[in-house]
Amino acid sequence: MAYVSLETSGKVARTVSPNFSRNTRAGRLKHLLSTSAIDSDDVDEFCQAAEAYEIGRASARGSVGKTVALLFFQPSTRTRIGFEAATVALGSYSIGMEDMSASRTNARTGESLEDCAAVVSRLCDAIVVRHHEAGAADRMAAKSLKPVINAGDGWNEHPTQALVDIFALRRGLGTIAGRSIAFGGDPRGRTVRSLIQLIRFEAPKEIVFCPPPHYDVPTDILSAIAENQIRYRVIPEITDALTDCDAIMMAPYDMSDIGEPAASGYISPNATPESHVITREKIERTHSQALLYHPLPRQDEIHPSCDDLPNAMYFEQVRLSKFMRMAVLNRILTAN
Amino acid sequence: MAYVSLETSGKVARTVSPNFSRNTRAGRLKHLLSTSAIDSDDVDEFCQAAEAYEIGRASARGSVGKTVALLFFQPSTRTRIGFEAATVALGSYSIGMEDMSASRTNARTGESLEDCAAVVSRLCDAIVVRHHEAGAADRMAAKSLKPVINAGDGWNEHPTQALVDIFALRRGLGTIAGRSIAFGGDPRGRTVRSLIQLIRFEAPKEIVFCPPPHYDVPTDILSAIAENQIRYRVIPEITDALTDCDAIMMAPYDMSDIGEPAASGYISPNATPESHVITREKIERTHSQALLYHPLPRQDEIHPSCDDLPNAMYFEQVRLSKFMRMAVLNRILTAN
Amino acid sequence: MAYVSLETSGKVARTVSPNFSRNTRAGRLKHLLSTSAIDSDDVDEFCQAAEAYEIGRASARGSVGKTVALLFFQPSTRTRIGFEAATVALGSYSIGMEDMSASRTNARTGESLEDCAAVVSRLCDAIVVRHHEAGAADRMAAKSLKPVINAGDGWNEHPTQALVDIFALRRGLGTIAGRSIAFGGDPRGRTVRSLIQLIRFEAPKEIVFCPPPHYDVPTDILSAIAENQIRYRVIPEITDALTDCDAIMMAPYDMSDIGEPAASGYISPNATPESHVITREKIERTHSQALLYHPLPRQDEIHPSCDDLPNAMYFEQVRLSKFMRMAVLNRILTAN
Repeated sequence: MAYVSLETSGKVARTVSPNFSRNTRAGRLKHLLSTSAIDSDDVDEFCQAAEAYEIGRASARGSVGKTVALLFFQPSTRTRIGFEAATVALGSYSIGMEDMSASRTNARTGESLEDCAAVVSRLCDAIVVRHHEAGAADRMAAKSLKPVINAGDGWNEHPTQALVDIFALRRGLGTIAGRSIAFGGDPRGRTVRSLIQLIRFEAPKEIVFCPPPHYDVPTDILSAIAENQIRYRVIPEITDALTDCDAIMMAPYDMSDIGEPAASGYISPNATPESHVITREKIERTHSQALLYHPLPRQDEIHPSCDDLPNAMYFEQVRLSKFMRMAVLNRILTAN
Repeated sequence: MAYVSLETSGKVARTVSPNFSRNTRAGRLKHLLSTSAIDSDDVDEFCQAAEAYEIGRASARGSVGKTVALLFFQPSTRTRIGFEAATVALGSYSIGMEDMSASRTNARTGESLEDCAAVVSRLCDAIVVRHHEAGAADRMAAKSLKPVINAGDGWNEHPTQALVDIFALRRGLGTIAGRSIAFGGDPRGRTVRSLIQLIRFEAPKEIVFCPPPHYDVPTDILSAIAENQIRYRVIPEITDALTDCDAIMMAPYDMSDIGEPAASGYISPNATPESHVITREKIERTHSQALLYHPLPRQDEIHPSCDDLPNAMYFEQVRLSKFMRMAVLNRILTAN
Repeated sequence: MAYVSLETSGKVARTVSPNFSRNTRAGRLKHLLSTSAIDSDDVDEFCQAAEAYEIGRASARGSVGKTVALLFFQPSTRTRIGFEAATVALGSYSIGMEDMSASRTNARTGESLEDCAAVVSRLCDAIVVRHHEAGAADRMAAKSLKPVINAGDGWNEHPTQALVDIFALRRGLGTIAGRSIAFGGDPRGRTVRSLIQLIRFEAPKEIVFCPPPHYDVPTDILSAIAENQIRYRVIPEITDALTDCDAIMMAPYDMSDIGEPAASGYISPNATPESHVITREKIERTHSQALLYHPLPRQDEIHPSCDDLPNAMYFEQVRLSKFMRMAVLNRILTAN
């Protein structure tokens, strides 16, 4: 499989909205539902804005006083608190629900997602929604008067996390171009799907999957990689990634609960086999320099004894997330 | 039955607090527990203030920096988010609980509503409470040092929703005076009771009920109408209202869950018989000009295919709710 | 048993951090996990700051715009709303969760407290945590980049409540020195432990316990008293405290649920025997001048008919809590 060489481009050409002209960029992205709507220039713009927020050099004038409704139908810690922290830092306000079972769009009253969007969008300037159903954010966007940001919809996508991940990968690696990036754990998760669609712009040397043997890498993810002529391979042991790769994006070994409503009580099996666990001992034995990322929460796939190693980037990834969510919110709040 | 003619008055005389002098009006309304405490001048004042907020022409100086505690013992979307959005717009802050089962006034710890009010009122400038028990807001007001706003108490009342409804009816109809206003669905709900007590000031031509055959219109509601010499009648099919009325305020067909605690898991029967459902087909067949209102959430009593018709006012009603809740909050926060 | 006389000192010498120099005081207290880390000068400083906030004479410049993450794993009304009100008054912002079962650190996803702290501390300036496990706040502090305030950890401690209690006792009594202070109800609670560790600095005349006969006063609490040479005794009837004591800090008769997760559904037995209940009749019969305090919520250990008596200080205690929580937050937010 061929891949775009670092020398000639450093990046693959953007493949989305090629006719899109630069000066109307800001207004183009009404909602943020999928990373498939984002092109390479968008990613650069988001990363530059995030960096500017990090060093306190970016204006948020357009966001001041605006209200962002957080509608969480699924549990969340870092996404929700990250968006809250971002609204505070922008001078805007988050309103709404940490637990939508306390809303009328719950199992008991049964208001539809469409009505929920129609209603809430008349009381705020943007909606951030997490839901256990794939497509929930799209359904809300169809009836919302205001922009909708998908903060995770079932098995489908989690685009702001993917932007965070790109920002953190660039930060750790300098550039993703020419680097070997591994994905450990369940390859079916929404963050993997969203991230793959962005990473293809970054001209990595290769993508390496270390999935559990009982779950295949979804075919749409493999297609997205192939379309962009990025080399990929599948490995059976995470130590191979520690040896061969520049960065490893970990995920829980089995994320089967991601499409379940909270009330179902379903809990994913969470014992990761030794072959797929990253430990301090493995890192030290392989003298691995691979940077470790994780959208979190983790189960047991990265042992806490790794937290102090220079490889560990997953908490820095959280710190950076606030600035990326500021960038996303500010663009969404000011463009519409 | 006689009714006050539009020509001679446009409004029935206000019947509440007749000795109340205009200059102390602002200070009169400490709590907002029931629309029975509101007179015709209050309604005008609230509507004018709401309109001023809508066009950005109203000061909220007295509300800036104040804190409003939201205490929701029952699920809510639009009331809670509406109050939150209103506090932000006023420069004040909402604190507190979207789900009071996470408070100590829950089934487990069992702190009384009275103690809850005594405590919370020492930490905020106003309380907004929703509860499944009729009279809960009154009980809290009796022990609260600060104003209490009833955001729905069981079967009893929901006064801010009634103010929103009056504001939205006036907006849609120009005036309610001389108009025929229908109420579809369960006539026992708290919004119906609160609204009837305000609508009697507005000199409608008649009130038309289209209730399910198994629930009578509550006698206190019929008395309130009769006392104000407003004509009313009961119809068996909602198409009659589409044909005859200027506006229809819909409600779910059966709201039996409204007095139940969330933890009960009780779910109202929610299949509306065809005779009581508004569809696009019925509107088009009858060439109805009737404006459709609904406090929401709806079940199946208004089909979503109606949403795009010019008749549909129920989402505009939500948009207007924010300005009315600003008006209520600002008056309550500044008068006390 | 001897006790330090009011004449010679007014206070016992501070016994914590004796080598701590005054000028680095502000920076010393990174976290607030236990009152055992607080000395007599700290208490004075907190009380002075709280008083200054109460009369509007204190700056909160260092707290403006900062974010405080509230992480409540256990139900709370006054502590949570008190911290929220305090952040608003300081110009800072509270973000986060009124119910951490809606986070990923819940029974289902099972993120560890350590990871929760590592993550959230990268998105805020301070963490306030309540949890049903003793030591939970310490575990979070060990991994948090930002200060952690213990808002109650199981049976262990509740230091901000103890500071509130000292502030309210001083307010009611003028001084605690030389006064007889009773503790009614379950002596095993976290507020008792935290408060005893502070009250020993205040040179009370004696500590009087009126516990249920089936629970002993914990030995660590008795040791803390003995070490500071404070006299104590145990009485069988609360009327003895009404007769003999200057102030009574009440607690529920049985707090066995305090170490249980909310999901357990465990409810403490809550029928207080007549011998341990304070009623208006008892107060009037004994002509008691004893001031009544309670961290609240109460069960039936103080009858509501006492609320209007001049003895009742428990709601004033709540009012004062906001200013003390401002003092704590401001010191924590500005010192680190």
